[in-house]
Amino acid sequence: MALTEVSSRASFGGRLSVHDHESAVTNCTMRFAVYTPPQAKQGPVPVLWFLSGLTCTWANVMEKSGIQKYAAEHGLMIIAADTSPRGDDVANDDAYDLGQGAGFYLTATQAPWATHFKMDQYITDELPGIIAANFPADMSKQGITGHSMGGHGAITLHLKNPSTYKTCSAFSPIVSPASVPWGQKALTTYLGPASVAWEAYDATELVKEMQSDADILIDQGNADQFLAEQLDPALFLEEARHHGQRVTHRMQPGYDHSYYFIASFISDHVEWHAKRLT
Amino acid sequence: MALTEVSSRASFGGRLSVHDHESAVTNCTMRFAVYTPPQAKQGPVPVLWFLSGLTCTWANVMEKSGIQKYAAEHGLMIIAADTSPRGDDVANDDAYDLGQGAGFYLTATQAPWATHFKMDQYITDELPGIIAANFPADMSKQGITGHSMGGHGAITLHLKNPSTYKTCSAFSPIVSPASVPWGQKALTTYLGPASVAWEAYDATELVKEMQSDADILIDQGNADQFLAEQLDPALFLEEARHHGQRVTHRMQPGYDHSYYFIASFISDHVEWHAKRLT
Repeated sequence: MALTEVSSRASFGGRLSVHDHESAVTNCTMRFAVYTPPQAKQGPVPVLWFLSGLTCTWANVMEKSGIQKYAAEHGLMIIAADTSPRGDDVANDDAYDLGQGAGFYLTATQAPWATHFKMDQYITDELPGIIAANFPADMSKQGITGHSMGGHGAITLHLKNPSTYKTCSAFSPIVSPASVPWGQKALTTYLGPASVAWEAYDATELVKEMQSDADILIDQGNADQFLAEQLDPALFLEEARHHGQRVTHRMQPGYDHSYYFIASFISDHVEWHAKRLT
Repeated sequence: MALTEVSSRASFGGRLSVHDHESAVTNCTMRFAVYTPPQAKQGPVPVLWFLSGLTCTWANVMEKSGIQKYAAEHGLMIIAADTSPRGDDVANDDAYDLGQGAGFYLTATQAPWATHFKMDQYITDELPGIIAANFPADMSKQGITGHSMGGHGAITLHLKNPSTYKTCSAFSPIVSPASVPWGQKALTTYLGPASVAWEAYDATELVKEMQSDADILIDQGNADQFLAEQLDPALFLEEARHHGQRVTHRMQPGYDHSYYFIASFISDHVEWHAKRLT
């Protein structure tokens, strides 16, 4: 699997590098970023995956969250993938919440999306192989986190793969796409009308069947403009409690849905994962 | 002087707010951002000005540097101004290094620039009055820093106003605009052909005449793509040493001109100012 290095920059004593590769899963060129902390000079380091939200690429978290600082302190590698397949040959939609930039970490079954939109397989199967082969990563120690749509991705992929992603956290996650407008639009488009197929991508449904040993950290701003309509964390918290899934949910007063919120608490998340992975 | 609040967000326990106002100096609407740290609830706090580089607005440093974290730790207010006047009525140029986004912190004397381009007066005279009147700022304790063109701004405004800006630092500053292509283009355009008028905006010329009591902290990446052609810190360091201006200059191995560089060392700069102002 050939990687093309797009850029490489010094950052907090480590390196932030961006790479392109041809994906056999999404059938297009995919771009991702890796932050390699200084500790990796001494040997493989644990890995923290960051899944981004609607409209984002690898760049948002690496440019705006300050995550490299804490990754360098704790010796974690950070992987930031894209949020969908992209390119002129890839199906798209003019809306910001559908198509390119809005992959929702699922495998689409409906035309024209099914050709390229397989972001869950890409994240869990193909990209880890590329990381393991090309970077000093200890793949026995992986955690996963994300924001908004990426928080949905982090929790669902963790619950379905708890032995791979041993730790999980999320910022402002969509906890039940089947219950909110963003998710209903995406699931209908990618998977067809409401059905059992939706449940495999809904954290609130999954946690009824699959609980992990982890304590899932969730931070949510109470001034988040999407809180009531699109996020509604109580949906998930109630089922998690009912089915014995540990969750540490923190409602942060005054914070919104932006990267200023993520930046304010990313240190806690990196430390949360580092303590449990190392 | 009426202020219009454009946005206000929680960030690291304080608030990041963005404001518009009509400027009597630049004759257009100006936008700036203020980070108010949590300590300001107890009373006025010292102020650190951040002057940005070519093409930037208030947003770059607030979105990408992580400065709010350290401002919150040390109790400093951060002011991020724009890099030029802007608007349909303001002269411009297609090049990224001239016109809007490229004010060079000077008072233009040439048409059509002289109508609006007075960024040094705006920064030193008008905006401080607005800050003092509207925010819990201790204006007896101000420091100044900046990046690239903004590093030029920080050092020149400090040397000319050492009792106002008691502390000074810079990232990758243009230390002698009269000697490098970016500066020569801007100074010729805004001030006319090379003359004594240029010297008032050239840190390397100014330091021959005006030295401050401060120790100026300068960080520079040795992998900066603009180092040799546009920055050349030795020009300034030699004259500073010769004329008794204290400078702490650090060449940081492997770092480039980007915000990843600034983010990696902004904690040192905020601490540098805080220790000396508080």
